[in-house]
Amino acid sequence: MLVSVPTKNDINSAYERIKPFIHQTPVLTSKLLNNRFNSELLFKCENFQKAGSFKSRGAVNAISLLPKAILKKGVATHSSGNFAQALARAASILNVPSFIVMPENAPQVKVEAVREYCGNITFCKPTLSAREETLEKVIEKTGASEIHPYDNYDIIAGQGTSTLELCRDYPNIDTILCPVGGGGLISGTALSAAYFGKGIEVIGCEPIGADDAFKSLRAGKIIPSIFPITIADGLLTSLGERNFPIIQKYVSDIVTVSEDSMLEAMQLVYERMKIVIEPSSAVPLAALIENKIDVRNRKVGIILSGGNVELAKISF
Amino acid sequence: MLVSVPTKNDINSAYERIKPFIHQTPVLTSKLLNNRFNSELLFKCENFQKAGSFKSRGAVNAISLLPKAILKKGVATHSSGNFAQALARAASILNVPSFIVMPENAPQVKVEAVREYCGNITFCKPTLSAREETLEKVIEKTGASEIHPYDNYDIIAGQGTSTLELCRDYPNIDTILCPVGGGGLISGTALSAAYFGKGIEVIGCEPIGADDAFKSLRAGKIIPSIFPITIADGLLTSLGERNFPIIQKYVSDIVTVSEDSMLEAMQLVYERMKIVIEPSSAVPLAALIENKIDVRNRKVGIILSGGNVELAKISF
Repeated sequence: MLVSVPTKNDINSAYERIKPFIHQTPVLTSKLLNNRFNSELLFKCENFQKAGSFKSRGAVNAISLLPKAILKKGVATHSSGNFAQALARAASILNVPSFIVMPENAPQVKVEAVREYCGNITFCKPTLSAREETLEKVIEKTGASEIHPYDNYDIIAGQGTSTLELCRDYPNIDTILCPVGGGGLISGTALSAAYFGKGIEVIGCEPIGADDAFKSLRAGKIIPSIFPITIADGLLTSLGERNFPIIQKYVSDIVTVSEDSMLEAMQLVYERMKIVIEPSSAVPLAALIENKIDVRNRKVGIILSGGNVELAKISF
Repeated sequence: MLVSVPTKNDINSAYERIKPFIHQTPVLTSKLLNNRFNSELLFKCENFQKAGSFKSRGAVNAISLLPKAILKKGVATHSSGNFAQALARAASILNVPSFIVMPENAPQVKVEAVREYCGNITFCKPTLSAREETLEKVIEKTGASEIHPYDNYDIIAGQGTSTLELCRDYPNIDTILCPVGGGGLISGTALSAAYFGKGIEVIGCEPIGADDAFKSLRAGKIIPSIFPITIADGLLTSLGERNFPIIQKYVSDIVTVSEDSMLEAMQLVYERMKIVIEPSSAVPLAALIENKIDVRNRKVGIILSGGNVELAKISF
């Protein structure tokens, strides 16, 4: 279990550790999108990852590192989203119980997914304090270990393995664009870009309605989102304490995008690439649509973070 | 140019001919869907094919076989859908003009796609007679050769190459499920299954609102759809004269499905497999949802025919 910022060796070790339990996700390209943005776009498809998002990487890594005596009591978290599924799946692989606190308004499809992976769900009111209190009670009762979805170095090292794969397969990437929520993905991405790439610029992309990372980077301190509103339900969380310093050191910039651009980007990916992504994954392409980042003549990795979307809530 | 039912050798030749110009499409699987239907489902992803559907296979094959003197005057067809794009693309590859008659109510996204491939579009009223008359005039003026989208042996041989790939990569398939429109895909599929498989049963799947193949197979003669209504816009056409006898000889059965089941099947594929398919592609899985076909403990190829969908028209 890591107690400081993951090194190159830590991310390499994480990769070897989780490799048997995750997909090496494909990289897709689109001539049409390359022409439109006058660059070479490399879409890293974590939407095809196990449990439907990059979260499986960190979850498997973090759980695998728990001492056996602790692990057997299980793991716990509160999540309405992708981390719930990823943790439940990771626990089921290692044959230990998982305890997931979910808000009672969590989407049915996500509740079902957690159940498929044999997660023990406790429902609570949909507030952060109710979630935290309920989780505390669950942990008291079960003795399970809490795994934080992003403010955790083992999680960060695991999320970095996606960009490890990307840099290994495409050694000359100039820029990587990555969505920003709590900062687990982008901090791992930025570390891997620094360790495994050659002078890669990493840019975070955030919905304007949940722009805490944008503000925090400019203020030099964490400024949490108070009432974040965006269809990108994976990006509502605010930056974690372990994530922010990594972002300060390794991320070149954070840009923000509108909801309309996100929808346009989603539609482009669905219609042109024929793949399903969740709104959070559309944020980097939305930044290109808004001309927020100059990628002309550059080789650009774009992390498609996940594909767990409630289709009924999306109208194109 | 073939003048009779394609032989095994004809389909092999078609494959060698078109291989440089098409994708060898991937086969995807889903544990969840395998468990649900208690079978091994192999999804042949023609939604990832060039120009977004299997139609590229037949179009490239048919055009490549035209004598050069004829070819240079170009090719023509009337189509509101996937064949328009596929033919325009195939013509652009061979550097010859394409003339596409499209109904004035054709979806904007499909019009744009044809334009991207440099197709010359002539719009007409959205009736079959207007389409045929306009096409006749275009051909008179340009000297272009009409390529029928399905009632053409070279097209049939080309469409069969998808199942050639499938049988080569999965030699022990028991059953292949395939959507039925004009019959180009299923006649090619059934021939390839007979030539390259081992006792494969081929079953056609049709929307109940466009069930001409279902009725025709039972009546022993072609019974065209009069007012077909279905969201599966690729399946509105009625069987072609060259297609029907092949279906009679090589297809075991045709089953029909409801619109609701198609939508449910589409949603399953989007949410679970994270890929975008058009409604026509959802018909075989809809047949499994309706328990129309017993696939228990069988290895089942499912042809996902295309991915060109107007997302605005789909509401899950």
